[in-house]
Amino acid sequence: MAKDFSTRAENYSKWYNDIVQRAELAENSAVRGCMVIKPYGYAIWEKMQAALDKMFKDTGHSNAYFPLFIPKSFFSREASHVEGFAKECAIVTHYRLKNDPDGKGVVVDEDAKLEEELIIRPTSETIIWDTYRNWIQSYRDLPILVNQWANVVRWEMRTRMFLRTAEFLWQEGHTAHATEQEALEETYQMLDVYADFAENFMAIPVLKGIKSENERFAGAIETFCIEALMQDGKALQAGTSHFLGQNFAKAFDVKFASKEGKLEYVWATSWGVSTRLVGALIMAHSDDNGLVLPPKLAPIQTVIIPIYKTEDQRKVVFEKASEIKNLLEKIGIRVKFDDRDTYKPGWKFNEYEFKGVPVRIAIGPRDVENGTVEIARRDLLKKEIVATDQLVQRIPELLDDIQHTLFQRALTFREENTRKADNWEEFLQILDEKGGFILAHWDGTAETEQKIKEETKATIRCIPLGDNKEPGKCVYTGNPSASRVVFARAY
Amino acid sequence: MAKDFSTRAENYSKWYNDIVQRAELAENSAVRGCMVIKPYGYAIWEKMQAALDKMFKDTGHSNAYFPLFIPKSFFSREASHVEGFAKECAIVTHYRLKNDPDGKGVVVDEDAKLEEELIIRPTSETIIWDTYRNWIQSYRDLPILVNQWANVVRWEMRTRMFLRTAEFLWQEGHTAHATEQEALEETYQMLDVYADFAENFMAIPVLKGIKSENERFAGAIETFCIEALMQDGKALQAGTSHFLGQNFAKAFDVKFASKEGKLEYVWATSWGVSTRLVGALIMAHSDDNGLVLPPKLAPIQTVIIPIYKTEDQRKVVFEKASEIKNLLEKIGIRVKFDDRDTYKPGWKFNEYEFKGVPVRIAIGPRDVENGTVEIARRDLLKKEIVATDQLVQRIPELLDDIQHTLFQRALTFREENTRKADNWEEFLQILDEKGGFILAHWDGTAETEQKIKEETKATIRCIPLGDNKEPGKCVYTGNPSASRVVFARAY
Repeated sequence: MAKDFSTRAENYSKWYNDIVQRAELAENSAVRGCMVIKPYGYAIWEKMQAALDKMFKDTGHSNAYFPLFIPKSFFSREASHVEGFAKECAIVTHYRLKNDPDGKGVVVDEDAKLEEELIIRPTSETIIWDTYRNWIQSYRDLPILVNQWANVVRWEMRTRMFLRTAEFLWQEGHTAHATEQEALEETYQMLDVYADFAENFMAIPVLKGIKSENERFAGAIETFCIEALMQDGKALQAGTSHFLGQNFAKAFDVKFASKEGKLEYVWATSWGVSTRLVGALIMAHSDDNGLVLPPKLAPIQTVIIPIYKTEDQRKVVFEKASEIKNLLEKIGIRVKFDDRDTYKPGWKFNEYEFKGVPVRIAIGPRDVENGTVEIARRDLLKKEIVATDQLVQRIPELLDDIQHTLFQRALTFREENTRKADNWEEFLQILDEKGGFILAHWDGTAETEQKIKEETKATIRCIPLGDNKEPGKCVYTGNPSASRVVFARAY
Repeated sequence: MAKDFSTRAENYSKWYNDIVQRAELAENSAVRGCMVIKPYGYAIWEKMQAALDKMFKDTGHSNAYFPLFIPKSFFSREASHVEGFAKECAIVTHYRLKNDPDGKGVVVDEDAKLEEELIIRPTSETIIWDTYRNWIQSYRDLPILVNQWANVVRWEMRTRMFLRTAEFLWQEGHTAHATEQEALEETYQMLDVYADFAENFMAIPVLKGIKSENERFAGAIETFCIEALMQDGKALQAGTSHFLGQNFAKAFDVKFASKEGKLEYVWATSWGVSTRLVGALIMAHSDDNGLVLPPKLAPIQTVIIPIYKTEDQRKVVFEKASEIKNLLEKIGIRVKFDDRDTYKPGWKFNEYEFKGVPVRIAIGPRDVENGTVEIARRDLLKKEIVATDQLVQRIPELLDDIQHTLFQRALTFREENTRKADNWEEFLQILDEKGGFILAHWDGTAETEQKIKEETKATIRCIPLGDNKEPGKCVYTGNPSASRVVFARAY
């Protein structure tokens, strides 16, 4: 591969951007902070959507669609929500343009000013709970288990493709329950669904935990999250599941008649993951040769590249290649046979290697004679010769193995980059020299967390779930701590 | 069914709204002109999406995603496009709210005014062609065959659920080609895809044709469309495919180097269908007992309703019902077993009848004893008794038959409601007494079309494709006409 792109060691941030661009995943658009998701990048998102959507439906959820616009006043209903979400947002104030009386082009028609401004949804709790009020009268209407696939807008000042963009695509689940217990169980269930998806589809190990108050979703009682570790030692929040208590039910007056005939406020959850997961996928597995994709989410799992010189060779090779393609497709593998004559085999090798296609099959006239092909796996960059009639066994095996290898590699990396810090010096040393997850004691106050953040840019990624609580002393204040929490610098 | 909703004869428009609401397809939201698509309505849209998406991919297209926002100036680039689309639209002027200094709530922060206003996309030709400029250098980069599933906003003053809403969901294909011929072939191909989908999935026969200049897409050289007939005799445009020529390539300066090394403007098409198709589906098939859905798009194809009194009966019936459910699911049928004990069988019968579930299976203790069930088909409201072990044959047969019957019924209706008018008197008489499609001669001028529209509200739905051109005299002016065109009042 021509080395006109960066390695991770040289410049991790540039390496990431180069991959996004060179692998044709996305690009910046003419609109500040908004990206264009190109076909190859969008195909990865579609695979993610399909897997998640199935998991949501298997756990009883249905999809629905709520308006893009939210009346401004809705945000003020839930006190902490307005602070968190209604500030940096896109505001629609007018609904008509007119020809510029002074010349060319169009200008805003001041006569078409909205009485109340509309906010482009940054998240949909408010409009959805305003809607749920009419859907819920009695316990028989509960639970409501709804998910929405949608675009949202948060006016971010510093954007980065996939990781942080003004407009992004996501799913947001919004459920309504009769009891606190049931809502809590839903919150945990969806956290588990996200962790399952991250580990078994994205091949990225994640920590499950609770967010500290500082990092909690604006309007939630408790925010649960999954946290992943990227190759540069920075953390990335890969999904959140919020227990909202009765906050939104109270803000939007949503009550139900219980079995006993009592009028009670409804309990709520919300949970979401976004196109930021594509960024996580890139950063978790890719190498200095480009993108590396786990087979379960790869738009193309196997590419077949024909090698030939003469027209006779072309015929023979194409015939065998098409046959292999059909065989592999029959067993459910996503195969591309790149039969273009406008590009040379060497160019194609580089192209698909850079694009992270898990398995490459090369086939030339000699191979056809011998009844073999050359297979290359993208994760380990290893080649092998396989008999053509073994491909329907070997390719699925290989794809499974790549999926597994990527997960194991990421898990080993995380284990090697998770360290305990028992005092402030250690904490600083690990953070600056090694990065990664730091398990450290914290006194439980928002104040200490804030100070640590200001001094080091490290934040509490989560308070891990689980029973192995070990008391100690806060690394920063020395005050008592109930258990270690996970610190890291984060995306 | 309790008759608290309208029949078609009483009030067609109210009948439509009642179905949308009572079948829980959609409802109006707190935001003017925007609807909430409820889970059952959205499930129909998902089925449509899945079928169309497969057809798009089978014809070589990929999905991508472009920004929601379009800089205002982009609209002025293509002269006729700005007239058609940049007028009634949602305009983002600011990007921040702040706490109201005078009291409660939040207000627009005037310091956060955008330099250039952003328009919420009403359609994406402009932002996409601005993007394609960087994707296309040589003939090797062509064709680009891209589709986008997205929300769009057109600030409609008179809205109606599914049929015309300010925000709606749709897909928009945008393709780029090296030659005029190839772009034209793509335009026709996608028209055929839409017609195929309408007839074979929606069970709605459609006319394929060309739009007159008045009805042409703003920026297109030629607009092709499929037109369907609703039960009240009004037409509905169900999809459009536009040949855009080089208009957008010129407006956004998109050129490519041909094989011969010449720099040429790129040829374009765009094509789209929207959630309005859900409205068409409702109006084409439903009856005075509620929604009727073609099996291929029905979220639930077969519902099983258990009938029992005692706990012993419940056990026996549930066991058999679950067994039937599993058997039918195994052969790919979407089955719901409504095992709720909070509703009675009679209520459930009405519920699923109103919701248009194609086949209902009722099973009680006597049925279990006899090894039979009662089946009811929604389209003809007919019942039959079937042996349980015949269900895996009978249900698929029945679903096919319903799909076919609905199409035939709609086709017969359209044939009975397509009439020739040879003079102005006839034209007016048919239009006012019968409605439907009127085949009439037209002199080919925009002026005449406009006058007919003003006097009668009828528009030219399309100039039908095909060779059977028969010259004659315009029904309105008596001037020569090359062939009959299709007039109707339309949604």
